[in-house]
Amino acid sequence: MKGIFISFEGIDGCGKTTQIELAATYLKKKSLEFVITREPGGCRISEQIRTILLDAENMAMRPKTEALLYAASRIQHLDEQILPALLEGKIVLCDRFLDSSEAYQGYGRKLGSGYIRGINAYALEHMPDLTFYFRCSPKQSRVRMGPRQTDRLEQENIDFFERVCEGYEQIASRDKERIFCIDATANIEKIAEQVQRHIQNRLSKEE
Amino acid sequence: MKGIFISFEGIDGCGKTTQIELAATYLKKKSLEFVITREPGGCRISEQIRTILLDAENMAMRPKTEALLYAASRIQHLDEQILPALLEGKIVLCDRFLDSSEAYQGYGRKLGSGYIRGINAYALEHMPDLTFYFRCSPKQSRVRMGPRQTDRLEQENIDFFERVCEGYEQIASRDKERIFCIDATANIEKIAEQVQRHIQNRLSKEE
Repeated sequence: MKGIFISFEGIDGCGKTTQIELAATYLKKKSLEFVITREPGGCRISEQIRTILLDAENMAMRPKTEALLYAASRIQHLDEQILPALLEGKIVLCDRFLDSSEAYQGYGRKLGSGYIRGINAYALEHMPDLTFYFRCSPKQSRVRMGPRQTDRLEQENIDFFERVCEGYEQIASRDKERIFCIDATANIEKIAEQVQRHIQNRLSKEE
Repeated sequence: MKGIFISFEGIDGCGKTTQIELAATYLKKKSLEFVITREPGGCRISEQIRTILLDAENMAMRPKTEALLYAASRIQHLDEQILPALLEGKIVLCDRFLDSSEAYQGYGRKLGSGYIRGINAYALEHMPDLTFYFRCSPKQSRVRMGPRQTDRLEQENIDFFERVCEGYEQIASRDKERIFCIDATANIEKIAEQVQRHIQNRLSKEE
């Protein structure tokens, strides 16, 4: 069996991380091999890039610098971590992937989808088999996140996150085969069941 | 008077750094305002990117990761350092610029000029007014460098540097108006005089 690449998308505070953990518990119960990884990061070089991207003192970072750093980290992560795991037949649970760049830098920073897809041509050849988009408004996410320490990106204003959400909606409506939109404000267990059902469907297809 | 953007190109060991220092001494004598900067680097974020690029433990870095990191660092450096200095009428002496990416990643890593120029579209709008290419064979540069500590890029084999030199030749023959080729094996003072003459010519044009 070939591996399955699953990404989890949405703004911070949408509950992605919790759902990745619940999906992992589910896969463990089914004795399926999986790896959990994240963007930006996932391997030495990409984690070094992550440090620059999230550094709260790097407020002078230009939008294109940011977009290119995400693209650089993604190529390394794909080649060193994601593709080898898929080749070994594992399920890859990835916290964010290219959709995040399109939503955040393409829409949020207004660089446009064309620019983002252009510098991420390699990632476009290796898109996830399945993506969960946890739909949640910026205001709802703020309430959920509470007073936690914020990194550089989390310090953006509400207009920025409104554009990011609009971006996610556009991407999801363009790619309905791959992306499943989930109401992030619903009950955690109910969301987990939805995620499991979609993963199960995908597994059945592979068999 | 508008500033002048001057880049110094060539493989490591070609004598760039010495010539930048001699050019600076010359400009100081003429009481002209200048800044010395370098790529990758020149400002906080770009220096952080430089650390990743030169880290001798990052041998797993993919060619496209490398090219995107250079492009990211360049945008930031241009916006934060080079363009503001030029706006203030200063002369900018820059150790490497886009030609390095085309020679090293385009030719050396075989990513091609088209890919490099594509991800560096912003830098293409702000090319140097004057570029000195210090021509020197990989073997000559090795002798000059001696047994100094090598970073990740300096650990490449001789074939890689042959391709880089071939790249520089191609770029120089394409852009004769901007790039002056200088025999890096000549006497240091003679080279410095050549550099000064070209800078003086350029200054006269601006007057």
